[in-house]
Amino acid sequence: MSSAAPEPAPAAVPARPLTAQEEAVVRALPHLVHALPRAVDGDMVRERRLTLTEYLTLMHLSEAPDRRLRMGDLAGVCGISLSGATRVVHRLESEGCVRRVRCGEDGRGRHAALTDAGLARLESAWQAHLAAVRRHLLDHLAGLDLRTLATAFQDIAT
Amino acid sequence: MSSAAPEPAPAAVPARPLTAQEEAVVRALPHLVHALPRAVDGDMVRERRLTLTEYLTLMHLSEAPDRRLRMGDLAGVCGISLSGATRVVHRLESEGCVRRVRCGEDGRGRHAALTDAGLARLESAWQAHLAAVRRHLLDHLAGLDLRTLATAFQDIAT
Repeated sequence: MSSAAPEPAPAAVPARPLTAQEEAVVRALPHLVHALPRAVDGDMVRERRLTLTEYLTLMHLSEAPDRRLRMGDLAGVCGISLSGATRVVHRLESEGCVRRVRCGEDGRGRHAALTDAGLARLESAWQAHLAAVRRHLLDHLAGLDLRTLATAFQDIAT
Repeated sequence: MSSAAPEPAPAAVPARPLTAQEEAVVRALPHLVHALPRAVDGDMVRERRLTLTEYLTLMHLSEAPDRRLRMGDLAGVCGISLSGATRVVHRLESEGCVRRVRCGEDGRGRHAALTDAGLARLESAWQAHLAAVRRHLLDHLAGLDLRTLATAFQDIAT
């Protein structure tokens, strides 16, 4: 009996190896995925004491009908887990920026609803978010077709 | 005394508002940042029972001199926190893929070192990682200059 671990059957069509340029993109991505949100987050917390996820939560609520969203829908639009959304809503609720309200026919569902204080908080952080996003992301995208890039990002994320 | 919260002094030069295309990029990004690693991770765990972060840890160790890295350097190249790197190294150590060894003149530092079993594990997952990265990322980047994109990603991440 060989001591080598059994190899799984190869996939029907092995994926093509990466070109040098593809590899450069792939290798830069883990840093981007971790470093970019941290950089934007760092600026916003320093300047406005609001995390990026808190900002996005307030922003999506402000754009929703009646300024409220089901918790699951809020998690979806923010791209975070339901437990992550629950944590951020708790934190924003403790600051008076969000209320949680019953919803649905039997009142068992829960919405997160933006308060007036939450809307004011969002507006006061808008400029800091814009500046951070320009500094850490958009200023580095010169030479790229932004329309194609946006479509690519949307395709990747769905 | 007014009940309105005091507004902070505006930044010297307010950032330009986003164009529609810039806004599309910015709005797609949180989903990309969360959804892409999850998608690649999901494929790799299903096919090879190895998370993306575990794969990247093994990969960077395999490329380092003597196949070992200081914990802080490992965290840096993987783009994760030191505590995150410690967790993943513990997990890989429990599977025999990594050993932790003393280093430095006084033996107080710690390296993570790749074992032969770890190298075999990396090689057995290479194809799954490649296929996942093609499927979830590269296949969506048609029409973009990959060299410019890689440079942009690297600039953003540093």
